[in-house]
Amino acid sequence: MKYKMTISYDGTNYGGWQVQPNTLSIQGLIQDALKTVLREPTPITASGRTDAGVHALAQVAHFTHEAPLDLHALLYSLNGILPRDIRIRALSSAPDTFHARYSAKKKIYHYHLYLSPVQDPFRFLYSTPIRTPLDLNLIQAALPAFLGRHDFSAFASAGCGSKNPIKTLFRLEMLPEPEGVRLEFEGDGFLYKMVRNIVGTLLEIGQNKLSVAAIPEILQSKDRRRAGPTAPPKGLFLYKVDY
Amino acid sequence: MKYKMTISYDGTNYGGWQVQPNTLSIQGLIQDALKTVLREPTPITASGRTDAGVHALAQVAHFTHEAPLDLHALLYSLNGILPRDIRIRALSSAPDTFHARYSAKKKIYHYHLYLSPVQDPFRFLYSTPIRTPLDLNLIQAALPAFLGRHDFSAFASAGCGSKNPIKTLFRLEMLPEPEGVRLEFEGDGFLYKMVRNIVGTLLEIGQNKLSVAAIPEILQSKDRRRAGPTAPPKGLFLYKVDY
Repeated sequence: MKYKMTISYDGTNYGGWQVQPNTLSIQGLIQDALKTVLREPTPITASGRTDAGVHALAQVAHFTHEAPLDLHALLYSLNGILPRDIRIRALSSAPDTFHARYSAKKKIYHYHLYLSPVQDPFRFLYSTPIRTPLDLNLIQAALPAFLGRHDFSAFASAGCGSKNPIKTLFRLEMLPEPEGVRLEFEGDGFLYKMVRNIVGTLLEIGQNKLSVAAIPEILQSKDRRRAGPTAPPKGLFLYKVDY
Repeated sequence: MKYKMTISYDGTNYGGWQVQPNTLSIQGLIQDALKTVLREPTPITASGRTDAGVHALAQVAHFTHEAPLDLHALLYSLNGILPRDIRIRALSSAPDTFHARYSAKKKIYHYHLYLSPVQDPFRFLYSTPIRTPLDLNLIQAALPAFLGRHDFSAFASAGCGSKNPIKTLFRLEMLPEPEGVRLEFEGDGFLYKMVRNIVGTLLEIGQNKLSVAAIPEILQSKDRRRAGPTAPPKGLFLYKVDY
């Protein structure tokens, strides 16, 4: 039988979602907890990996288990084992055809920029401080160029597992937050580090190092070197996955 | 000359505001930073101490220094030295008569209760999880009894430095938050652990261990043993001090 889990985690202390040598991963810790409770190795598959330091409000993963499970008890058992910065928020049965990655219709990421020169001690792990002056009007003007269906190769970092670089960005909005702004990305899929590479490019635009008009050219070039640098992970949240 | 500073801190890693032996204190770290920059011991006085684990969005403190200071440079120097979970948010000159504690007209504290059985990994250090069922209507009904001018001795823990146990609570409200509630306290002063002792008492009321009608009696008794236990520090924020 197939099961779906929704997971929140603070990525600060982890080497990312995916099991990797010599680092604590969120996937690894949840698989360990599942093995402890279910008494057999239980691999889980997420909607996608998140990098070291990236956070998730609602990552989704699936796993299979032969016998029916008491999901209420399992939820509390897993949370009792897991560190407090990783929480299983929900557990449910899923149809056999459900796949956390391939069934995903839409993913939403939020990226938080902190723009005051003095950091907020409650947000320094959850936003990226920008100390140089930033022209938010330029960033705002640049957003529409990313919308729609594009080959996003110029915004994909090496190591991208996706075979198809063509993705559709349905929504890209900049919203005000206390002492900063939040960029909301909504798309049918994202290439490796695509959100952070777009944010890094938008920051160059806001700092007048790159023009708004350059974006269509960068997209067409499919050349990662023409886009901006990768923005830091700590401002990024996987906010929601829709199925 | 007198100077006023506004400070935010995450109290998680500290033994509280006040300098004490064998523990890192927020006051001690700020005084150390001031000594490094100003090259002389510079004691600071806060609006009041906060206990180990209690947070502050806007604690206020004052200090004196003979010479005029470049406050802009000092702000950045201090924040460069201080750990990232303590931030000086503002620095300004103050009249000679200003005293962070005695000039305070009003203090606002917020206490966050987290009521979902599964914790939010981003809030477990900043709210108190309540795992027993809580009747919020009973808590709501109990709030007015605390309002106004009272001898709050029954809600003061031992070690209270205040000579006058009579304080006025202007406002005590319960407001909804995602998966929880926030209690907002606004008063002309607070006795030692008074907010946490009132919250502990409200929790007993919400759990039907104490009746709403008991509050006036407890206040009149001035007997700490009749009120509820002290609620944990991590849900408490010193939110604002008005002068």
